[in-house]
Amino acid sequence: MKSFASDNYAGVLPEVMNALVLANEVHARSYGADEITARTRKLFCDVFEADVDVYFVFNGTGANVLSISSATQSYNSVLCADISHIYNDESAAPETFTGCRFFPLPTNENGKLTTDAIQQRLIRKGDIHYAQTKLLSLTQSTEYGTVYTRDEIKELATLAHYNELYVHVDGSRFFNATASLGCSLADVVTRTGVDILSLGGTKAGMMFGEAVVVFNKDLKQHIAYKHKQSMQLASKTRFIAAQFEAMLQGETWRKHASHANEMAQNLAASLSAFPQVKITKPVQANAVFAELPKAWNVPLQDAYPFYIWKEATNEARLMCSFDTTKDDIHGFMDMMKHL
Amino acid sequence: MKSFASDNYAGVLPEVMNALVLANEVHARSYGADEITARTRKLFCDVFEADVDVYFVFNGTGANVLSISSATQSYNSVLCADISHIYNDESAAPETFTGCRFFPLPTNENGKLTTDAIQQRLIRKGDIHYAQTKLLSLTQSTEYGTVYTRDEIKELATLAHYNELYVHVDGSRFFNATASLGCSLADVVTRTGVDILSLGGTKAGMMFGEAVVVFNKDLKQHIAYKHKQSMQLASKTRFIAAQFEAMLQGETWRKHASHANEMAQNLAASLSAFPQVKITKPVQANAVFAELPKAWNVPLQDAYPFYIWKEATNEARLMCSFDTTKDDIHGFMDMMKHL
Amino acid sequence: MKSFASDNYAGVLPEVMNALVLANEVHARSYGADEITARTRKLFCDVFEADVDVYFVFNGTGANVLSISSATQSYNSVLCADISHIYNDESAAPETFTGCRFFPLPTNENGKLTTDAIQQRLIRKGDIHYAQTKLLSLTQSTEYGTVYTRDEIKELATLAHYNELYVHVDGSRFFNATASLGCSLADVVTRTGVDILSLGGTKAGMMFGEAVVVFNKDLKQHIAYKHKQSMQLASKTRFIAAQFEAMLQGETWRKHASHANEMAQNLAASLSAFPQVKITKPVQANAVFAELPKAWNVPLQDAYPFYIWKEATNEARLMCSFDTTKDDIHGFMDMMKHL
Amino acid sequence: MKSFASDNYAGVLPEVMNALVLANEVHARSYGADEITARTRKLFCDVFEADVDVYFVFNGTGANVLSISSATQSYNSVLCADISHIYNDESAAPETFTGCRFFPLPTNENGKLTTDAIQQRLIRKGDIHYAQTKLLSLTQSTEYGTVYTRDEIKELATLAHYNELYVHVDGSRFFNATASLGCSLADVVTRTGVDILSLGGTKAGMMFGEAVVVFNKDLKQHIAYKHKQSMQLASKTRFIAAQFEAMLQGETWRKHASHANEMAQNLAASLSAFPQVKITKPVQANAVFAELPKAWNVPLQDAYPFYIWKEATNEARLMCSFDTTKDDIHGFMDMMKHL
Repeated sequence: MKSFASDNYAGVLPEVMNALVLANEVHARSYGADEITARTRKLFCDVFEADVDVYFVFNGTGANVLSISSATQSYNSVLCADISHIYNDESAAPETFTGCRFFPLPTNENGKLTTDAIQQRLIRKGDIHYAQTKLLSLTQSTEYGTVYTRDEIKELATLAHYNELYVHVDGSRFFNATASLGCSLADVVTRTGVDILSLGGTKAGMMFGEAVVVFNKDLKQHIAYKHKQSMQLASKTRFIAAQFEAMLQGETWRKHASHANEMAQNLAASLSAFPQVKITKPVQANAVFAELPKAWNVPLQDAYPFYIWKEATNEARLMCSFDTTKDDIHGFMDMMKHL
Repeated sequence: MKSFASDNYAGVLPEVMNALVLANEVHARSYGADEITARTRKLFCDVFEADVDVYFVFNGTGANVLSISSATQSYNSVLCADISHIYNDESAAPETFTGCRFFPLPTNENGKLTTDAIQQRLIRKGDIHYAQTKLLSLTQSTEYGTVYTRDEIKELATLAHYNELYVHVDGSRFFNATASLGCSLADVVTRTGVDILSLGGTKAGMMFGEAVVVFNKDLKQHIAYKHKQSMQLASKTRFIAAQFEAMLQGETWRKHASHANEMAQNLAASLSAFPQVKITKPVQANAVFAELPKAWNVPLQDAYPFYIWKEATNEARLMCSFDTTKDDIHGFMDMMKHL
Repeated sequence: MKSFASDNYAGVLPEVMNALVLANEVHARSYGADEITARTRKLFCDVFEADVDVYFVFNGTGANVLSISSATQSYNSVLCADISHIYNDESAAPETFTGCRFFPLPTNENGKLTTDAIQQRLIRKGDIHYAQTKLLSLTQSTEYGTVYTRDEIKELATLAHYNELYVHVDGSRFFNATASLGCSLADVVTRTGVDILSLGGTKAGMMFGEAVVVFNKDLKQHIAYKHKQSMQLASKTRFIAAQFEAMLQGETWRKHASHANEMAQNLAASLSAFPQVKITKPVQANAVFAELPKAWNVPLQDAYPFYIWKEATNEARLMCSFDTTKDDIHGFMDMMKHL
Repeated sequence: MKSFASDNYAGVLPEVMNALVLANEVHARSYGADEITARTRKLFCDVFEADVDVYFVFNGTGANVLSISSATQSYNSVLCADISHIYNDESAAPETFTGCRFFPLPTNENGKLTTDAIQQRLIRKGDIHYAQTKLLSLTQSTEYGTVYTRDEIKELATLAHYNELYVHVDGSRFFNATASLGCSLADVVTRTGVDILSLGGTKAGMMFGEAVVVFNKDLKQHIAYKHKQSMQLASKTRFIAAQFEAMLQGETWRKHASHANEMAQNLAASLSAFPQVKITKPVQANAVFAELPKAWNVPLQDAYPFYIWKEATNEARLMCSFDTTKDDIHGFMDMMKHL
């Protein structure tokens, strides 16, 4: 099967699988006290050009919940996009583990948070009856496949910090976003004021594993304890670290993320040739949003699974991944031509 | 390095690594909707000879917390051994996620819970001021490396059920225990009345991943939702399932667990030859507990890391794993001879 | 001081104070096992014309959180108005204690939830990634001082039940609403399908105390334990029960709630005489919402404190209570005339 | 009925009832912004001879949970006596709200914690796998009715602080203990190093209400928010404050607590006259523990309810309260003489 459903339908990058095989030597200290983990942590400091703390976790929900819990007390609230993953797709895990209130903010037509929307929730500071706002959570690339520019992040972070909020980035597709921006990882976070980042590995081609990267030293106080407490500490941590080492070394991530992004451009261009199809969002990372004739859903999804994002307009979300090929796109187009 | 510190210092079994490589084909549905996961779930029903529900999770703490949360309301309490992993080594994760009280019970000299100790906590049923006891959690094999017999489990489960408690087994070393008992997996749980099992994969030679196996249908009501909510649902679930498939098929687990157990016997026998050393617990699975001269700690741990379990008597815990060799033991003995 | 800030600025009704003095005789069993509590519980069954369970609690947040926790598991979500007290004024207590997600719904111009708004959140049933919607929470009277008719409640409850949601009513001003409707307490809840009610006492003229009234037997399973666990069980429960007995006997509540409602009508009529003032919501219970010239705020609030509900339009909320007098209103009008 | 079951069977002191009636004048700001509350807070600073923060709460469980939550993060653990109220009689409220682990410590024969017992749990500092010990909770007077001396509290507090733990006192009967010690309130806490105190009002003769008194400024950071979040903030706070004002002014508390203590001495002396009865604990506050012939339970409890603390030895707990009279004791003795 080949699919446009999600980049987590894809398997594991050859570089990553190779790293896993190589990491499987003799014995190593558990819970991250091993050499591969030490080495990879240092590599994070290098690529983010900062003295970051890194916590390797199992999945995206774990990364987000750990990040949020390190920046909040249970009487706090978190601002996030109403379309965000943490608001729609992580059950009540954020509330259950952190105790916090989550306030959904409307986004602009491209799925991005705006200073206006944020400012309207910057209310009642110091009022004990109101869950005190303490964290702003962005998604990069967004749920609509768009990418915040560095200036946009800096502007939001500045507003947040001015109001004593921390800034979290849910970066399950952060590699795609950074590849799209054509800059370094440090450019997008270290230089914009992000306090903590959920850096996604799984959707980028790892078998499992994400990294929580801590930039702000305030957030370093409790997080090591919460890492364990949130059930996200791997006994054989080196098998997550080794995957990230393979991703970061020589910017392996950029090659594959750029390919996925390129495939999305290719797919969007191909779709545009069909008058029945309307591309609905700017294609900036590895997602294409397009309205299709509803009758096409069943035959197309049968061959190439994908999700309908919005039923009212039959808007499909088509995700490309590191292993999407031009042949996949041709196959998909061929099917469309015969519908 | 070779170590006796923990079986989680070991890497990945060749059968498991092979399964991971093979599972890495084209695309597969995420979150456990794939074919490997379906196949492996069926295999669990076969080997446990029951219509079990299986939830693949990331680590042991996750497995335990998910199991407990599926059997309790937040006003409940859990009975566990005062030496148990959930009481000593999982931070406050059990409380934070389930809300429950955990009551520690003394164990007998072999680290096993007794009906006497349990009965003393079966109090105040229906009293709203008292966190209502709802779950008994056993560890198999125990923290002392001993193994509950099937009759012992049955007796404890009968007492628990009579008092309307569910029975959980923390089986991070369940394969070692079952190999030691020389019976089937079904014999130890399905036929003894266990309601839910945390089945350990990582310490048995997997890269990551454990399985929560649900026997009692009462506990099937909420667990699928709690699986996601507890941050334990892998998007690429097939890479956990494939490892378990490799473990369960043809009882791969038994070969390797038996080897580790045998190495522990060998190690104990070798240690017994030293008059300065005293084996302190029956060696029934893959752990050896032994009092050593304190002066030996530094040089020995330098070459072969291990933990001191009890400082007062300098009692060491020496764990054997699937890849412990007779050479490792000889090397260790050689060092001891020169001390 | 006399104020229009909140009905909780008022003190204690003479009937209630008298009941407290009378309840203070010799010894009584604690935690609700006393005779006054037994008698009052029976009185609740009488006035609600149903076999209800009653839990006396300390305050409104406690009543709401206990109600919600009795109807939900931690992976559930709750639908409530975006202007509701539980969403805006109870810190993160609902999340911290229940673990649930709270989804805010827009209300109509009168502050009421609509079937349309609810239906748009009745999504993704059975999807483990989504906090499963399990409870609809209404406020009666609403935060805008309007009152749901019995038919409106019945329609919302029918929709909720059809979708397997429970219905909670936050009734901190339930007596005012029922007095406004001119019907019995049973008419508004027992005959409309409400599952659980937070019945407010404090704002109605009690010293402290609210009652959680359980209509649906499903919700009776855990609530006694959660009552204690939520820190809402009074050792001298009879002093809450006695207050409710005084309120319910001979419908004491109706006399005082009707008076407060009448004062609100009187106040609204008086305000309408001022061309600079615009009444913004239908006055149906004991609140008046009115836009005032901003310059009036300081001098008026100095003499008669009140809250500005919406700064943009300088919309004031003016609450009447059981002890609001025509003289208070005259005094307020007099001040306005001189501004 | 008159009873020896608990001091919470008693009603309300005349001074307190009088204060409640007097507090019921016109309108007052809600949530503690009123004058009575301001005045009473100042009075707390006076009697504790320190710049304390005071939070008025509803009940003892609320006071304890709020205190604990102000001193801990969710990955922390709390040391408490295995016989303590927070460990036995507050459901799982402490865990559910704070997320923490509670470790029970054995007490000496008089129900007091010892430095030895504490030191054995001061382990694994900085170990992320272990719920980090952060709080020591004492009960004054103890569950056995004994009273820590000031030196004993100072010694325990010194040990705690040396190990970076905070010290909480559960003082539901703190007035009795202080009366017993014959010193000032400040002597027992301010001068011993206690960081936070749950000061009990209800058992001392209030209608409802306790006070959390914060001595250590570290604990002042979050507590105002947690006060609301823990559902313990009264809208008509003045009715709790007024009761405490009545208790503290002119040391009203001392007169009544001394009386209850004296009655306990009287009761113990009377009981000692019976050869079948054995006083089992030193009588230092208002409780008497005594082994009675089991056959006496039913007839005695019928007339004067009391609890059997320990069934094995038929050890009764007999509590005296502010309204226990010599006649009550005579009546009780009379019944005993006829058994």
